[in-house]
Amino acid sequence: MLPRLTTTPAATTVFTMVLTQGPVSRVEIAKRTGLSSAAVTKAARPFIEKGYLQELEATERTAPGAGRPASPLAIMPDREFFIGVKITDDELIGVVTDLRAQPLLSLHRPLATTDVDGVVAELTALVAELLAADPAYTERCHSLGLAVSGDVDKAHGLVRYSPFLGWRQVPLAKLATAATGLTVTIENDVKSLTVAEQWFGEGVGASSFALVTVGVGIGCGLVVNGHVVAGSHGVAGEIGHIPVESEGPECHCGGRGCVEAIAGTGPLVSAARAAAGAPEMTIDTAIDAAHEGDPAVREVFARAGHAIGLAMAAMANLIGPERIIVTGDMRGLAAYDLFEEQINQSFAAQAFGAAADCRLLLRPRSFEQWARGAAAVAIQTLFTF
Amino acid sequence: MLPRLTTTPAATTVFTMVLTQGPVSRVEIAKRTGLSSAAVTKAARPFIEKGYLQELEATERTAPGAGRPASPLAIMPDREFFIGVKITDDELIGVVTDLRAQPLLSLHRPLATTDVDGVVAELTALVAELLAADPAYTERCHSLGLAVSGDVDKAHGLVRYSPFLGWRQVPLAKLATAATGLTVTIENDVKSLTVAEQWFGEGVGASSFALVTVGVGIGCGLVVNGHVVAGSHGVAGEIGHIPVESEGPECHCGGRGCVEAIAGTGPLVSAARAAAGAPEMTIDTAIDAAHEGDPAVREVFARAGHAIGLAMAAMANLIGPERIIVTGDMRGLAAYDLFEEQINQSFAAQAFGAAADCRLLLRPRSFEQWARGAAAVAIQTLFTF
Repeated sequence: MLPRLTTTPAATTVFTMVLTQGPVSRVEIAKRTGLSSAAVTKAARPFIEKGYLQELEATERTAPGAGRPASPLAIMPDREFFIGVKITDDELIGVVTDLRAQPLLSLHRPLATTDVDGVVAELTALVAELLAADPAYTERCHSLGLAVSGDVDKAHGLVRYSPFLGWRQVPLAKLATAATGLTVTIENDVKSLTVAEQWFGEGVGASSFALVTVGVGIGCGLVVNGHVVAGSHGVAGEIGHIPVESEGPECHCGGRGCVEAIAGTGPLVSAARAAAGAPEMTIDTAIDAAHEGDPAVREVFARAGHAIGLAMAAMANLIGPERIIVTGDMRGLAAYDLFEEQINQSFAAQAFGAAADCRLLLRPRSFEQWARGAAAVAIQTLFTF
Repeated sequence: MLPRLTTTPAATTVFTMVLTQGPVSRVEIAKRTGLSSAAVTKAARPFIEKGYLQELEATERTAPGAGRPASPLAIMPDREFFIGVKITDDELIGVVTDLRAQPLLSLHRPLATTDVDGVVAELTALVAELLAADPAYTERCHSLGLAVSGDVDKAHGLVRYSPFLGWRQVPLAKLATAATGLTVTIENDVKSLTVAEQWFGEGVGASSFALVTVGVGIGCGLVVNGHVVAGSHGVAGEIGHIPVESEGPECHCGGRGCVEAIAGTGPLVSAARAAAGAPEMTIDTAIDAAHEGDPAVREVFARAGHAIGLAMAAMANLIGPERIIVTGDMRGLAAYDLFEEQINQSFAAQAFGAAADCRLLLRPRSFEQWARGAAAVAIQTLFTF
């Protein structure tokens, strides 16, 4: 059980609203949440006492003759700091953020190995380096969030399976806590990025949205009715394993014609090599060839875009998200202009009725922003009842 | 705005728990909900005063020396009655239920027309007949739920589009209220059945589940984190429009290779006719032919089962429901044994990792049970804050 600063649902509701949508007056909070004014005041008090919230000076009356002007509540962003680290197979990317998940500092460390002990040793050094950058960090940073691709059991701090790292059943939270002395939260990397968007990004104010990541794999984070969808059996958001080509390639998951088996970086490069008759082609040279107009390689990217667009439509037909944020690491998105037209076209053709009204937003996210996602999970965990 | 009997989230939580999982003691309610004992008592009081809840005799102490024995709270099922009506293109099916959505009486009325005025006139007669069956119904039934296939805007009481009825922008709630004098709730029929399962059926206690209906269309109701997924743009659960055959038939929705274009009753019959070279074949004779072993017709059903199984896997990969209830009207499910093996096989092959642990439950539901779904929506609306 991770320590939490809130002990009632009302406390979470009030703090979250100020954190994600503040500054905001108590009256406005009451109006938006349906809580009584007394309940809002009661919920806010401990956060003010502990220095997480502040009362701003009242600047204006809400209406002529409306009585005592409202003093908006605002976050004290420097009250506490958080570290977020994204673990990839060849480097660690770490950030220190404030309470609003704003990155203040970022550092990279290459990984010579994906061996668990080796990664934890590098992580420990990275955390020490981040904390040493400012005495305030050492003093007021207690939480470390880690984002890992694959099947992550957040509640038990366990990486159940991470194909890219070659990890199975790794008790990462426990190991990282022992090594750093911080409270550690671990989460799947796509879900982490989704949490960052939900509280601090394009998802603020949306009761439902989807985040689709395009890169080595094709992933998806979903927020429905204001909550991240976790999946009863630990699996959710596997948009990469929607079958869209009945006679398509076999996928590593055991399925056939999965989006990821067509549009993931590996299969895409293989297809481009075959199409161009160029066995040495890499993702970078494939992108170059397509940009230079090679029709066979362009067709490979278009087919991938078609697969992604169909899968996004299938998802929109099922869930009806308010918006879809399309993102990925910079490497994955370097080719986005090659996908984009086909994604939009296939999405529009397959979206059912009003599901086509769902907006697609392209928002590239750097690895620092993925690391920020890990910090956002640590923040959300601390403040959610 | 429909009238509601609950005015706080706590009241909804407490009443719902007694309704769907009772009899249950206040102590147990407090434990399961995280509410304080005082809050539970306060929330329950008005329902006891109005006769919706009763305190059962304390039967046993919870533990030796545990003090005053707990008196479980239970529903008073006959405190209020509800009418639910499922509207199809050729008949109305109506039920009277008690507060627990248990059907007490059901009646059918054939429809000579799907003209709005004609349907409302038959509906009015059906409601009068149901109410007249028992003086208690007339006295204590105030709510009518209507279930309609298609795009239904519950909040505004509007049938936006119902292809089977040929309706567009029909203000059905208003018309039915004027005609019957009851408070009318309308909802999509698959969502209605989902609500009935959520509160009173196979969904009780599951924080997420899916209901898949197989018949003329292929539909799906989703509950995620305890709430029915409505879709931001009014579209959700359209599992029938997941594209599973890249070179498959064009669908009425504008897409290609949709599940419904392969496994819906109409396309299924067309494919069976072509396969058997029998242009007069109906769904019933196609099922007979398959049961008698005609390999070409059996293959048509297997292909449909494959499409349904893939789509269910795509849904499970995205949402991760705890269980999937497969249902339909009796007509649609008469062929289920012809689909079943292929559904199970294709689901298992395409489900990603632990998503394959999701249980598939076959639960045929009669039209009376669909009508009961409409009553369940009326009940849920009355008691949800």
